[in-house]
Amino acid sequence: MTGKLYIVGVGPGHHDHMTFRAKEVIAESDTIVGYETYVNLVQDLIGGKTVYRYAMTQEVERAHQCIDLAKSGKIVSLVSSGDPGIYGMAGLIYETLAETGWDPKDGLQVEIIPGVSALNSCASIIGSPLMTDFAVVSMSDLLVPWEIIEKRVEAAAQGDFVIVIYNPASKKRIHQLQDTRKVLLKYRKPTTPVAIIKGAFRDSETIVMTDLENLPNHSDQLGMITTVIIGNSSTYTYKDLMINPRGYKSKYNLEEQTNPNLKV
Amino acid sequence: MTGKLYIVGVGPGHHDHMTFRAKEVIAESDTIVGYETYVNLVQDLIGGKTVYRYAMTQEVERAHQCIDLAKSGKIVSLVSSGDPGIYGMAGLIYETLAETGWDPKDGLQVEIIPGVSALNSCASIIGSPLMTDFAVVSMSDLLVPWEIIEKRVEAAAQGDFVIVIYNPASKKRIHQLQDTRKVLLKYRKPTTPVAIIKGAFRDSETIVMTDLENLPNHSDQLGMITTVIIGNSSTYTYKDLMINPRGYKSKYNLEEQTNPNLKV
Repeated sequence: MTGKLYIVGVGPGHHDHMTFRAKEVIAESDTIVGYETYVNLVQDLIGGKTVYRYAMTQEVERAHQCIDLAKSGKIVSLVSSGDPGIYGMAGLIYETLAETGWDPKDGLQVEIIPGVSALNSCASIIGSPLMTDFAVVSMSDLLVPWEIIEKRVEAAAQGDFVIVIYNPASKKRIHQLQDTRKVLLKYRKPTTPVAIIKGAFRDSETIVMTDLENLPNHSDQLGMITTVIIGNSSTYTYKDLMINPRGYKSKYNLEEQTNPNLKV
Repeated sequence: MTGKLYIVGVGPGHHDHMTFRAKEVIAESDTIVGYETYVNLVQDLIGGKTVYRYAMTQEVERAHQCIDLAKSGKIVSLVSSGDPGIYGMAGLIYETLAETGWDPKDGLQVEIIPGVSALNSCASIIGSPLMTDFAVVSMSDLLVPWEIIEKRVEAAAQGDFVIVIYNPASKKRIHQLQDTRKVLLKYRKPTTPVAIIKGAFRDSETIVMTDLENLPNHSDQLGMITTVIIGNSSTYTYKDLMINPRGYKSKYNLEEQTNPNLKV
């Protein structure tokens, strides 16, 4: 007997921004697995189900248990905040299944339920920073050597990408964002807008709008649930909003429409 | 009297992947504005409301009308597929408001409702391509000169980013993806996995898994609702899935957990 494995993104930690599909598959599941903090996000949806809570860094064990449970006939939701397809558990599940010769066509059924990730939720809160091309970089060097991450930051700077930084810092890891700032200052003005979003859409949400020059003054804002968005050459701020113009200004005259007497 | 303006992402065109907040604000609104195709996506939710449908390329007019309607006291939802914060209408609305000296604190209330964008939905369908750092690039050169876009592709290639391409081609615009492929082949193997996703989560959904070498054989798959995901140096395919390992392999032995007798 074979069950199902759902890898579910529940969004930024507020049910409002969860998708209908996420809620639906959690309701269908008899078994819920997840990092404790993530399981707590859906506590009100999992009454009567078997729940396995994990501590951080037990990802491999978690992946194996989910697969084993689903193979034994359970309908399993592996839950996480945000989108499991972005730096999430989707990869480890597929990697683990691939190692065992799994065939998606006639083996265990797996479905990834995409969610509103930090890049989506944080952008929506601070304005419109992602109207142009952007790069998404994780500062976590647990699994990727720092030299590679730093090389990516430099490439993103050279390409004039807006940059979204996941996992900017933890208690033991603070130099990465400092090094990133140094690299970026080689290419961008000290006045380049920077937004630091902590706990997006949670009760604890705090937002700091600053710039590359003053970024080091806000290290208290960094942590596990913080995202940093750094503007590119065309990003500007307007009353605490970070706006990227997506080139409209050069093409259209925005005034034209409100003042039909204006000749263009 | 002042109304409200919601800029609403309804996800990839299937209500399953819409958020609760998106549905809620559409229900609260008395006025719906949007590009015709997007309005059609929520046709079943807008009975009894005033609906303004626009043709493509009327973005500036659409932004002004939304703002004027909200200022006159209407509760307006400007709807779009995906996430309006990613290459969407959020930017033009804020730009237009900024031009008129709008103050978010005591002026018109604006809320962006983030949604599942093409990068989220397409990744979830084809495997786990976004387990590592990625760059998001739009090939549309209507508002951004092609030279800038090409420079970004080159930077993303140099940084070994996975690349998500929005708007890869239209009927009049086909050279961009060909040029992109040429740039990438300077840095990446011809066997680098490429996924072409058309109409994600719509009834018309089609997926082609190919590689950089064979990408030109699939130009019939390109269009306005197509997204292309190009792997980086560590991306591999497994039975039509695109997997990025996120570095776990180098750190953990995945076999260890299934075979506890194995010494590491």
